[in-house]
Amino acid sequence: MTEYVKTLETTLFEESPLTLQCGATLSPVTVAYETYGELNEQRDNAVFVCHALTGDAHAAGRHGPDDTKGGWWEGFIGPGKGVDTNRYFVICANVLGGCQGTTGPGSINPATGQRFCLDFPFLTVSDIVSVHSELVRSLGVDRLLAVVGGSLGGMQVLDWAVRFPNQMNGCVVLASATKLAAQGIAFNAVGRRAIHSDPGFNNGEYYETDGPRYGLALARMVAHITYLSEDSIELKFGRRLQDSDRFAFDMEKETEFQIESYLHYQGKRFVQRFDANSYLYLTRAMDYFDLAEGYETLADAVQNVQARFLVASYDTDWLFPSSQSRELVSALLQTGKHASFLELPCPFGHDSFLIDLDPLTELVAPFLQQTQAAGRA
Amino acid sequence: MTEYVKTLETTLFEESPLTLQCGATLSPVTVAYETYGELNEQRDNAVFVCHALTGDAHAAGRHGPDDTKGGWWEGFIGPGKGVDTNRYFVICANVLGGCQGTTGPGSINPATGQRFCLDFPFLTVSDIVSVHSELVRSLGVDRLLAVVGGSLGGMQVLDWAVRFPNQMNGCVVLASATKLAAQGIAFNAVGRRAIHSDPGFNNGEYYETDGPRYGLALARMVAHITYLSEDSIELKFGRRLQDSDRFAFDMEKETEFQIESYLHYQGKRFVQRFDANSYLYLTRAMDYFDLAEGYETLADAVQNVQARFLVASYDTDWLFPSSQSRELVSALLQTGKHASFLELPCPFGHDSFLIDLDPLTELVAPFLQQTQAAGRA
Repeated sequence: MTEYVKTLETTLFEESPLTLQCGATLSPVTVAYETYGELNEQRDNAVFVCHALTGDAHAAGRHGPDDTKGGWWEGFIGPGKGVDTNRYFVICANVLGGCQGTTGPGSINPATGQRFCLDFPFLTVSDIVSVHSELVRSLGVDRLLAVVGGSLGGMQVLDWAVRFPNQMNGCVVLASATKLAAQGIAFNAVGRRAIHSDPGFNNGEYYETDGPRYGLALARMVAHITYLSEDSIELKFGRRLQDSDRFAFDMEKETEFQIESYLHYQGKRFVQRFDANSYLYLTRAMDYFDLAEGYETLADAVQNVQARFLVASYDTDWLFPSSQSRELVSALLQTGKHASFLELPCPFGHDSFLIDLDPLTELVAPFLQQTQAAGRA
Repeated sequence: MTEYVKTLETTLFEESPLTLQCGATLSPVTVAYETYGELNEQRDNAVFVCHALTGDAHAAGRHGPDDTKGGWWEGFIGPGKGVDTNRYFVICANVLGGCQGTTGPGSINPATGQRFCLDFPFLTVSDIVSVHSELVRSLGVDRLLAVVGGSLGGMQVLDWAVRFPNQMNGCVVLASATKLAAQGIAFNAVGRRAIHSDPGFNNGEYYETDGPRYGLALARMVAHITYLSEDSIELKFGRRLQDSDRFAFDMEKETEFQIESYLHYQGKRFVQRFDANSYLYLTRAMDYFDLAEGYETLADAVQNVQARFLVASYDTDWLFPSSQSRELVSALLQTGKHASFLELPCPFGHDSFLIDLDPLTELVAPFLQQTQAAGRA
């Protein structure tokens, strides 16, 4: 008999509000999260998984018979998998500002009884982590075995390790960086512009309408290109046409090459599951993130880190290139931290950490075991 | 006393209509063009310059005292420059389907007395070249010394050399390819989608209104990123902010990083000078272009080429990577053609051919002289 997982909900910061980095406060904060596996008696087997820009709390397992695909990291988290739920108690929560159950711009502002929309306070990766950190405490876990995340999830891991150095023994940072490069900010700016210039956006107050669905779809289309490597697009689609062997020579036909229909499809599908305001807030959080901000050097920033680090990048990832992971690892090693780094060869670009799970399993499974052993020693 | 240049206009295909690759016909075709320098008595010193996607006929010289910048290749074409107008008679024409004087979707359809809009026939790089080729004949030039172009202009050069092999002695192909890679098609698809989904587009019939100005600006923003290298964006903008040293933490502020304001500015400026329908037609022409189409191999396609080739790519150009230029040169050499190839080191990405003109001058000036000498020998 299959056991289904449920998305749970908890309310934090009820009595003492959450003070965000921008100075605003939020109270209460609802957090949607899931857990897989069991917390052991020593409470030293908890692994927190941080999701990326458009992920959610549903990292693994199935919600029910209709949930055929399972969670977004289904191949990596589960019994006997990279993050083995027979051994570890795994927690994944939707981020603050998200749209999958955790308080965000689409939530009701208790002060007004209306949705926040753009009155939602400006949030940062640190604010996301503050909520995660509090969630972990509320679950009775003093110290996580590890925090694991890719892309924006990796940024959360980094912030967490610096700001709450005693809350974990290990950190796994995949396809990420200590700050977004200008080209990444540029692509995010295009996505936000697409949302802003859609008349359906209505300054963020669109929840009773279809909303900026064209703008959000466009934002996803352009972002999606950056998640793939040039070679993987070429291999998967090349110049093949959608319906025919021959060009249609027809300006009415908007999608003719397979890559065009694919991107249009990705855009449309994304609109069904994601909220444009959340997209604005979370891409801003990503742009703002700079681990070394307020420090002289990156090495200074990671000075207080306690956790052991595993850092992996992908050779075809041009959004978060390996050079950025190397900078991080170099700063960790300079300051005497324990850090392993591997650049993985994989054709799928930035998305590799969601796709190519065997090499990841080979890296992460022993890292978690070693980290647990080191913590118990 | 400065001599100003004028954009000239000629009418072609009046008696015998132009049959396009899609089968439709156009008659007449107005062509806007400019010339610089003098055609010599032997009529063997004419160089045709093919402009890129959003260029125009104004490649060099100044239109008047207000034209402070001069033409789009001002640093490369002129007395004593890479294409030396003291030696050569230079022709540059706005492409078919364009919006700077040559017949395009914004022109009046003689059959209806209304603008073509999307009734303009589907056009290809070959159609553009057919018009250029006819223009050259109409100017009394049987054989060009050379055809020169970068990016979409380079595609025109390639098509020209294959379809009218006796019309030139030399070809210069810069930052171009024999076909667009899937990633390039993907970015074009995003740009077109931005135009299509702007309510101002109105199925291409927008000439009495502001038109799809947000969509067109977005298309330019995303394309502009692809014209720059990651390093050049990083160097020029990095993570620097526009107005302040500190983050504003303000969702109302749409542009905060310098790269954001820069892209917004590029988008706005582009809308003032370019037509959205032309953008749709010309990006489609670029997507469709495949020099080897209808041939077994690329080498077969270039079999009848007569011209000497100079091919140059840029090491940081990720839209038209050097590998594509190498394929072209390899096909030319396989079939016994005269072809030189250089990958130029330059940090500016695809746009390098418009920016880094000294190395280009060093390559092109001797190539034109040698080609002229070879033609006279």
